Amino acid sequence: MSSDNKNSGASTLATTAKATAGAGSAGAGSRWLARTLYEKAGRPPIRLLLWDGTEIRGPDPVATVHIHSRAALLRLLLHPDLYFGEAFMHGDLEVEGDLVRFLESLYRARATAQEARLSRVAQSTLSRARRNTLNGSRNNIQHHYDLGNDFYELWLDRAAMQYTCAYFPRAEATLEEAQVAKLDHVCRKLRLQPGETVVEAGCGWGGLARHMARKYGVHVRAYNISHEQVAFARERARAEGLDDRVQYIEDDYRTIDGACDAFVSIGMLEHVGLENYPALSQAIDRVLKPNGRGLIHSIGRNRATGPMNPWIEKRIFPGAYPPSLREMLEIFEHGDFSVLDVENLRLHYAETLRHWLLRFEQHVETIGRRFDADFVRAWRLYLAGSLAAFSSGTLQLFQVVFNRARSNDLPRTRAHLYVETAEHLP
Amino acid sequence: MSSDNKNSGASTLATTAKATAGAGSAGAGSRWLARTLYEKAGRPPIRLLLWDGTEIRGPDPVATVHIHSRAALLRLLLHPDLYFGEAFMHGDLEVEGDLVRFLESLYRARATAQEARLSRVAQSTLSRARRNTLNGSRNNIQHHYDLGNDFYELWLDRAAMQYTCAYFPRAEATLEEAQVAKLDHVCRKLRLQPGETVVEAGCGWGGLARHMARKYGVHVRAYNISHEQVAFARERARAEGLDDRVQYIEDDYRTIDGACDAFVSIGMLEHVGLENYPALSQAIDRVLKPNGRGLIHSIGRNRATGPMNPWIEKRIFPGAYPPSLREMLEIFEHGDFSVLDVENLRLHYAETLRHWLLRFEQHVETIGRRFDADFVRAWRLYLAGSLAAFSSGTLQLFQVVFNRARSNDLPRTRAHLYVETAEHLP
Repeated sequence: MSSDNKNSGASTLATTAKATAGAGSAGAGSRWLARTLYEKAGRPPIRLLLWDGTEIRGPDPVATVHIHSRAALLRLLLHPDLYFGEAFMHGDLEVEGDLVRFLESLYRARATAQEARLSRVAQSTLSRARRNTLNGSRNNIQHHYDLGNDFYELWLDRAAMQYTCAYFPRAEATLEEAQVAKLDHVCRKLRLQPGETVVEAGCGWGGLARHMARKYGVHVRAYNISHEQVAFARERARAEGLDDRVQYIEDDYRTIDGACDAFVSIGMLEHVGLENYPALSQAIDRVLKPNGRGLIHSIGRNRATGPMNPWIEKRIFPGAYPPSLREMLEIFEHGDFSVLDVENLRLHYAETLRHWLLRFEQHVETIGRRFDADFVRAWRLYLAGSLAAFSSGTLQLFQVVFNRARSNDLPRTRAHLYVETAEHLP
Repeated sequence: MSSDNKNSGASTLATTAKATAGAGSAGAGSRWLARTLYEKAGRPPIRLLLWDGTEIRGPDPVATVHIHSRAALLRLLLHPDLYFGEAFMHGDLEVEGDLVRFLESLYRARATAQEARLSRVAQSTLSRARRNTLNGSRNNIQHHYDLGNDFYELWLDRAAMQYTCAYFPRAEATLEEAQVAKLDHVCRKLRLQPGETVVEAGCGWGGLARHMARKYGVHVRAYNISHEQVAFARERARAEGLDDRVQYIEDDYRTIDGACDAFVSIGMLEHVGLENYPALSQAIDRVLKPNGRGLIHSIGRNRATGPMNPWIEKRIFPGAYPPSLREMLEIFEHGDFSVLDVENLRLHYAETLRHWLLRFEQHVETIGRRFDADFVRAWRLYLAGSLAAFSSGTLQLFQVVFNRARSNDLPRTRAHLYVETAEHLP
């Protein structure tokens, strides 16, 4: 009987259970059952010891599980989640060793096994994605961001040339102060340490990347598909002597590679499109180290209510889509991540737009000469409309901080974000 | 022609447009079109002025919109979102007055109109809900929480009798300190002001309600369907002289009523079940004032992976389900809410459980005498298993802060949560 069973590894569990039910003694039957249970559990670092002396031993076991009968082993195999608790409660199974450490090792092993399954699903989803989306994104981005750096320089801040929501710790902060405060708020959320590596997806004119390298001592690989922005960013990095620590790469977020301690993306998600969230999730999954952290900053909405305003889509931002927070979370629930912190900064964006609109109007003659009256009216409406959308609560601004799901390298509280004095900065 | 049109209010827009297309002068045709546009926009506080002098005037108009041609008006009616921007850009439509205030009023009016539509949908969903769920919840809750207050008193904190995740601002905090710190963390997030009214759904032994009334000077209506817990809570409130400010109501969260400035629910959502999230959302929607804030604190998961562990469901928590953050957000996206802040406190729950397990083991003989050995093993496994689930990242603890979607009464930053000195407390 035992040799029969050795050869029936491919047969169903039910068949095996039936074949071994009559046997009262030790042998390959119970070993095969225990081995199957161990594999199903994702090979945790534990030791299984059966009633008949059979032993299955993982590497460096943290505890020994005594299973006292064949009936208990069979039930564990058939309904592990329900029956483990029942057997433990009734004493049909005993754990020798630290119960908490033992359970942690079970949970971790199962998460690893689930992760492997999900990763296979994600791979097959990705392979169905259309080939031309890389080109499509490039055209969409050039429509908006390649209008000329000098146009944006007229009305964006002079400190870091940020075309995203600023952060006003005090109402009276200037736009320049608020944009630098935003960069620091992001860097504190990422808990950057000197010497770490950061990947930035969608880096605009490169202000955040240079700020991180200069003030936090990290190495940055920053991606962007806007040719004009990348040229500007490289020139600035050279001028500031940061080109040994900041690398600007004219390529799509889907091509990011290498390993990093932190992933950051400020104001790119609006251009990614829901259908590409799995690809973004997979790209982050590919590069983020086991103790890695990340932050995605994006315009969003309180609920998914269909596509963006069609006029904005047509004239200003082709391909743009502001997700609801639920939709944003698909990125994290799709991969091996855990959401740690979400902050809604919509009134900060209204304030930012108030500054931009004011500066835009101050330069309206210059802009009218370079473009035309239709362009001026279109941009006036876009800036005023965006301001109104944020101040009325039609649009939101979400910063989502996440980390690797199984990393316990977490800050105890968020108090470190609100320490103003310089000596507390990383 | 104009009298024909007056009577054809029920006819389609296309018919009307055709009938009036030939008319070059003022009359009921253009007035009817402008009125329809105004109604479609949700009756914003604006003035519409047509090329022919026709005027539609909302109450206290913030701006005047000049529409320069019938063609522009027709296109606005057919595709308002796209054509408004086109007409503005080309000058076929002009806005007299503050452009931002005008756009804000449009967004607000549209949100109100959408809200009314969604509310009708929600009403019809609710009417389909099964009648016996109120009884089902009562049985499920009594299974766990009516084991006897003295059992829980053996191993919960003595400060506030909290059977939910504590908050350890410092690693060395005692369980008592950490549970009080949790209560304050929640109260600060809610920005409670003296004299305000709070509704609490699922109040346990009433510790948070008494703390809010005592320290923050608010009035609390606290709901719970566990008979034993409510009796305990009322007795404590009487003993502390708080029964004029705290009312404990032995009833289901679905029956909450009246108006409140803040809604709070700590550790109840796990027992609500996904199918009842729309009912919870509607209950909050019914009571929360226009400037109201809310907080939901719940065990959660990184991704939805089917039902809870079946053993826990069977022996410990019948009907329980820890949602993913995405699933939690259904509550807010279903109603007129905006998510402001999410914090994941899972390592604080691991620490809380470490304290509980230690105290449980210290009293294990007493517990064994009162119940039996199976009960002791079951609870040991439940506490150790929960600890392991939080420390390994299998379970999360989410605190979600939200407010009414259109309220701008928001804190500028979250720094007020991290001010330790008493004079900064509300």
